[in-house]
Amino acid sequence: MTSRAAKALAADVPVIAAAHFEAEADKYGPDNPGGYVNLGTADNRLVWDLLEPRLSVPVRRSDVHYGLLYGTPELRAALASVLGPVWPGVDAEDLVVLSGATACLDVLATALCDPGEAIMVPAPYYAAFDTDLTARSGAMLVPAPMSPDTGFALDPAVLDQALTTARRDGVVVRALAVTSPGNPVGQVHPASVLREVLAVAAAHSVDVIADEIYAYSAFGGEFTSMVGAEHVHGIWGLAKDFGLSGFKVGVLHTRNPEVLAAAQALAYFAPVSTHTQGLVTSLLSDTEWVGGFLAENRRRLGESAATTTKLLAAGGIGYVEPGGGFSLWVDLRPYLPEPTAAGEHVLWQRILRTGRVNILPGTAFACAEPGWFRLCHATDAETVAAGVARLVEVLAA
Amino acid sequence: MTSRAAKALAADVPVIAAAHFEAEADKYGPDNPGGYVNLGTADNRLVWDLLEPRLSVPVRRSDVHYGLLYGTPELRAALASVLGPVWPGVDAEDLVVLSGATACLDVLATALCDPGEAIMVPAPYYAAFDTDLTARSGAMLVPAPMSPDTGFALDPAVLDQALTTARRDGVVVRALAVTSPGNPVGQVHPASVLREVLAVAAAHSVDVIADEIYAYSAFGGEFTSMVGAEHVHGIWGLAKDFGLSGFKVGVLHTRNPEVLAAAQALAYFAPVSTHTQGLVTSLLSDTEWVGGFLAENRRRLGESAATTTKLLAAGGIGYVEPGGGFSLWVDLRPYLPEPTAAGEHVLWQRILRTGRVNILPGTAFACAEPGWFRLCHATDAETVAAGVARLVEVLAA
Repeated sequence: MTSRAAKALAADVPVIAAAHFEAEADKYGPDNPGGYVNLGTADNRLVWDLLEPRLSVPVRRSDVHYGLLYGTPELRAALASVLGPVWPGVDAEDLVVLSGATACLDVLATALCDPGEAIMVPAPYYAAFDTDLTARSGAMLVPAPMSPDTGFALDPAVLDQALTTARRDGVVVRALAVTSPGNPVGQVHPASVLREVLAVAAAHSVDVIADEIYAYSAFGGEFTSMVGAEHVHGIWGLAKDFGLSGFKVGVLHTRNPEVLAAAQALAYFAPVSTHTQGLVTSLLSDTEWVGGFLAENRRRLGESAATTTKLLAAGGIGYVEPGGGFSLWVDLRPYLPEPTAAGEHVLWQRILRTGRVNILPGTAFACAEPGWFRLCHATDAETVAAGVARLVEVLAA
Repeated sequence: MTSRAAKALAADVPVIAAAHFEAEADKYGPDNPGGYVNLGTADNRLVWDLLEPRLSVPVRRSDVHYGLLYGTPELRAALASVLGPVWPGVDAEDLVVLSGATACLDVLATALCDPGEAIMVPAPYYAAFDTDLTARSGAMLVPAPMSPDTGFALDPAVLDQALTTARRDGVVVRALAVTSPGNPVGQVHPASVLREVLAVAAAHSVDVIADEIYAYSAFGGEFTSMVGAEHVHGIWGLAKDFGLSGFKVGVLHTRNPEVLAAAQALAYFAPVSTHTQGLVTSLLSDTEWVGGFLAENRRRLGESAATTTKLLAAGGIGYVEPGGGFSLWVDLRPYLPEPTAAGEHVLWQRILRTGRVNILPGTAFACAEPGWFRLCHATDAETVAAGVARLVEVLAA
């Protein structure tokens, strides 16, 4: 096996995916009350009733033959229309469609970094960044730890300092990857903070990978995009805001002509089927329906987050107040057998094996402080309630 | 831009794709009689009437959420069943589904070759190998030219000699990539020849990439697979035998555990949407329909090839007798202004610009002898006839 294949293999099945498939194989439900309650996967299970009537679209002859591999003009036009409100002035010509946000991250890392060069990420960060941004590209990640004292709020000063330190240490940082709204913590970053982050990146001459896959899932604050300047490359997709995670439709936005050309070329290796492109085009082209859907999705997410935090509070479990996305950043520090990564692992396994609840430990997100867990609430209220009840029970034991 | 991005960009839009999109944008038809007749693309346009009634499949809830990224167990089981007759003893566990045969080729090149190592290909070869096998993987191609005197028949002795020469020259060849049935020449390679090729590969300790994407499109001879031994890695897909090129569903088969693990890991970056996986699973699960479809497809391809060769012969144009696939290897040597690559380019441009017929010149397939062109006949008889008539006319001028 080549060294690169080994690297991809070593990075395979991030903890997040392994736990997901284990939990899904023996899933809690009316007919399996002893199964796993899966609150580990950032999957939107609140909107199937809205989607189902829109998904029966006949396959046209043009949908089965070769199409432009970085997205048909029709799909990119529909995407530009949907994204207009969050990405002001977005042009369909600046969009590249790829088989999922994963492929978007990989393509940006490949276009921006030579092997061994680095991407800085505020930590805790989306667990799959470790695979997505490095396994094929050969780039490396440099985490910049945010402080537990502020609820891990995005801090431009910390990034500035970390970039300075990295340069001093001889690390060539090419980009800063920021998930906004945040994941796993679930914050909606204030516009003023994002402006400062962009200024820090510009001052250090690093590009910005703006992972805005939850752009339309902000329910507790107003989302502001980082997209706009030539050194900012946006990522969005259908997985989160539209609850279509299996469709693997990612979209990359850039105003940098070189990055755009490279992404169009690399899309050749990770295209979306014209079949799925056809369906998504049809879905997104009804702008009135889209507007209603996105508003209802936000409403349901807000309701789900509020219900879940109420249950956590009633069970005496702390959390960072969420503003967007699907996840709650839960404070289980008081329940650690010891305040270390090993202690966190023990508690995680107890929750998974004894409680039969899948939530993910902070180490999976490179959180510097042990004891934090990510709980995804974007599933039906009954299941979430069952999961929290089990969690409270296992913590009390 | 990184060097790798530049490499991908330089390899982008192979001549085959550029000509395709130009021809498709102004396409010959009843309402556009002056448009391009596109006989340049290896796209199967003979089976839409058979497919259309089978493609209206409701999207299930499970089709919109995360699935196993290297192919759902259901799809791999259906694929194993369909492929059983051509890949004896194929096991669904040895299959990896990827977003197109392109991704399969890229993944195999990445798993088998470190950058700078080589893959040998009998020439002329499928034009996109240059991109698929090298642009992301960093591997290089070493063509082994077959002889015009035998109609470019696959010759194990030539491969043996070329592998010896490569080793002497310090080139590390890791694999031999063979398209079977052949493309662009359209031969069905005899079983005895394929056995010898496998023996040559084994003797030189190189793996074999068996590109068998036309496995079910042999109409003039019996197809024999190379798949079986651990050092042979098979590729198939829905693009050719099922006429679903836009679906970008490729499948890789290997009995080598390391290559399998690497391919499963790399599939993470180029998955097929669960939406398309669901439809394809439904389509392939009706084994009776599949059997009838594949037989009718072969019959139509044979008829189309026979009709087209008759027209060519009537127009005084030579060709290699085809046995499979969609292409005819047409001998336009007598019409070259001079017997060079430059002369071939002049003739190609005349056919494309004056004749408004898109067929591809041999240089695009690394053919050592100028004057050969690939003509794809898998489209409706009226269009093919119009294209051949124009070709005859432009050659006579």
